[in-house]
Amino acid sequence: MKPRIAKGTRDFLPTEVVQRRYIFNIIEKVFQKYGYLQIETPTMELLETLTGKYGEEGDRLLFKILNNGDYLAKANQQALEEKNSNALISSISKRGLRYDLTVPFARFVVMHQNDIQFPFKRYQIQPVWRADRPQKGRYNEFYQCDVDVVGSDSLMYEAELIQIYDEVFKALNLPVIIQVNNRKVLYGIAEAAGIEEQFVDMTVAIDKLDKIGKEGVTAELQRKEIGDEALDKIFACLDIDNLSDLEDAFANGPTGLEGIKELRAMHRFVDTVSLHNELKFDISLARGLNYYTGCIFEVKAIDADMGSIGGGGRYDDLTGVFGLKNVSGVGISFGAERIYDVMQEKGLFPKSLETQMQLIVVALDEQSHLYGFGVVDQLRKAGIESDLYPAPVKMNKQMKYANARKIPFVVVIGESERASGQLALKDMESGTQSMHTIDELISKFTK
Amino acid sequence: MKPRIAKGTRDFLPTEVVQRRYIFNIIEKVFQKYGYLQIETPTMELLETLTGKYGEEGDRLLFKILNNGDYLAKANQQALEEKNSNALISSISKRGLRYDLTVPFARFVVMHQNDIQFPFKRYQIQPVWRADRPQKGRYNEFYQCDVDVVGSDSLMYEAELIQIYDEVFKALNLPVIIQVNNRKVLYGIAEAAGIEEQFVDMTVAIDKLDKIGKEGVTAELQRKEIGDEALDKIFACLDIDNLSDLEDAFANGPTGLEGIKELRAMHRFVDTVSLHNELKFDISLARGLNYYTGCIFEVKAIDADMGSIGGGGRYDDLTGVFGLKNVSGVGISFGAERIYDVMQEKGLFPKSLETQMQLIVVALDEQSHLYGFGVVDQLRKAGIESDLYPAPVKMNKQMKYANARKIPFVVVIGESERASGQLALKDMESGTQSMHTIDELISKFTK
Repeated sequence: MKPRIAKGTRDFLPTEVVQRRYIFNIIEKVFQKYGYLQIETPTMELLETLTGKYGEEGDRLLFKILNNGDYLAKANQQALEEKNSNALISSISKRGLRYDLTVPFARFVVMHQNDIQFPFKRYQIQPVWRADRPQKGRYNEFYQCDVDVVGSDSLMYEAELIQIYDEVFKALNLPVIIQVNNRKVLYGIAEAAGIEEQFVDMTVAIDKLDKIGKEGVTAELQRKEIGDEALDKIFACLDIDNLSDLEDAFANGPTGLEGIKELRAMHRFVDTVSLHNELKFDISLARGLNYYTGCIFEVKAIDADMGSIGGGGRYDDLTGVFGLKNVSGVGISFGAERIYDVMQEKGLFPKSLETQMQLIVVALDEQSHLYGFGVVDQLRKAGIESDLYPAPVKMNKQMKYANARKIPFVVVIGESERASGQLALKDMESGTQSMHTIDELISKFTK
Repeated sequence: MKPRIAKGTRDFLPTEVVQRRYIFNIIEKVFQKYGYLQIETPTMELLETLTGKYGEEGDRLLFKILNNGDYLAKANQQALEEKNSNALISSISKRGLRYDLTVPFARFVVMHQNDIQFPFKRYQIQPVWRADRPQKGRYNEFYQCDVDVVGSDSLMYEAELIQIYDEVFKALNLPVIIQVNNRKVLYGIAEAAGIEEQFVDMTVAIDKLDKIGKEGVTAELQRKEIGDEALDKIFACLDIDNLSDLEDAFANGPTGLEGIKELRAMHRFVDTVSLHNELKFDISLARGLNYYTGCIFEVKAIDADMGSIGGGGRYDDLTGVFGLKNVSGVGISFGAERIYDVMQEKGLFPKSLETQMQLIVVALDEQSHLYGFGVVDQLRKAGIESDLYPAPVKMNKQMKYANARKIPFVVVIGESERASGQLALKDMESGTQSMHTIDELISKFTK
């Protein structure tokens, strides 16, 4: 039997694991420094929790788990006879795989509301699963990395999340631009154009400005029967790049003005600190998802041919669907898979990640091998990552292994080394060799 | 809608996550020091990879994923008409959830044999899923933590894995006994008793000695029609607790003698180092799983009412089923969930894990709050985990939050603190208060 891996899934080799963890560790350290706590939710959620939360497309892309045992015994008979796959599902599957981290988080907050303190600052880094058609860069299993605070409407947190983006991408050595807008400002455009009732259509169209340009957006809005005058107003607003001018344009729109007020409050916090990356107000930033109600964010890597590598915003009613009303929250996520791809492409992973082992001991004979086992034990007890080749085979073979594993130093032990206690240390890059006691080796290799 | 969690699954609150990671981090650090590399395999494997590897019971306990789209269109018509749940599965489900880390590892080794170096030392810490009936301490989703080396038959690795057990449990402050035996020694008992053909029956019975005692084992072996003379020989062997006496008892059994030779070779390595925990030869140790072929291990916590918290052994043909023959390997696993339970019960988690945040800044007015945002930014930039309450609300409310989050120090900022640059630091345990500049705070809290 020739082994295969399921389509859309990946194995991670040791180097990939180390590189991925390098990213996650940097992100996590920043989260922790800012007071966010890690939670984990299960891989399997009840379908009743997941279904209907991600739209029709989302429901289709959920991975559903077949009930165990004689699942057909309780199957919906009519659906079975009609061979209606869709109608049958709920009777033969009660669980699905986590589709994102947001809905499980909302469920978590409601179920554990008495175990946590509000404002509750949490982060979560776990895989999610979507039955998308696999293609380059898109997988059925991938990691999400979310940080949110719920239970406070303070705009301080908007500023804090911007700081987090800034600090993470600085630490990753990956320059980005952080775009910010506010859904209420977008609503202000609709107010200015007098098309409040078509706010969603307008937002969906504006969201594509980057891709389809002004003409494309115009065409789409015209299809939605938005008139020329309104169109002019919309595009006049979209040309504005500062809050003061926008305030004039929104003079008669209370929601738009509220959005400007929120952005200003956020900026007051941001202005007390210094950022390494550019923070830019972008009035055309819309974020597809409709549950955002206040500030919204998006991050793009500079000089990289890649969509957004992060995004988020404020939502006023995340937990309402699970029965807990009026819990305002704001959060951002990091597109870990895309960040990995950009870092790979730009060669941003430190070279040190390639060396996972400093030192290997090789022995020339059985006695030296046994002696070497004690040597490597002492090195490890001193905290030095080190190894011993498993048998005193031909030196050539042992050296080849050290090379293949990219181990920079080899300690050679033969009869004379055992007798003298002076061990031969070979630098694999320079080829030089020097003699050392174990204690000397320990102090040389202790970080 | 009242939210629910799927049976047999768990949410992890921040404190639990920190405690679980404490265990995993200690284990991982030791693995890395010994030269093991981390890999990850996907959650979903093809059912063709999983089915038939874990026995009938295992096949039943696999979680199967319903194919997406119109899965009934390609369903086995006969099975559908007969409502045969079992026969239908393969036509409506092609993927299942990872059941353990061993089979995916075997698949990984075969598929990536040209990308890895042999001996290949790998570790893997990932969840697995089993549709067991949920009960106390048994979940449908739980972590496994495996470390293996494949591609070498050197008994040095048996000794190394014992060291790893020893070092991990020392670091966890959890005293254990490490039991060791060899499947060939068990075979030697069958040889001595002349019942080689009933080796498996004998092993299965001996494996229960702990639970059902000598009488129970005798009864079970009698049911398998093993005669009195053979029984006497078996129990005579089981009474032996040292290799020299066993050598005499096995005088005519080549496999048994080979097993003793292997144990001796392993001990030669172990004897060059010192262990903190007891290593004990236990001839009745059998390990249920039949794929072990050489040394076997089991770890029990001392003074804890808990089964084994770790186990493993050598297997000679892990990858054969996927077409790669003659790859010998040896590995152990850590029962992370049970280790967690024992540590919890014995109160072994360091108290420091309860404090995830050193310092919170609270402000008395709007201006001080803005000022505080800059203060906490400086603290964080200096690497200090710190936070700012989101608004200058009543002091009482802010202090209550600090208490609930178990934050040991609070910095209070009001008008006079802003003016003088001397910030009030309150020690929440002692209740004392002192005045400090930001620089002083930074040097006080920098680790």
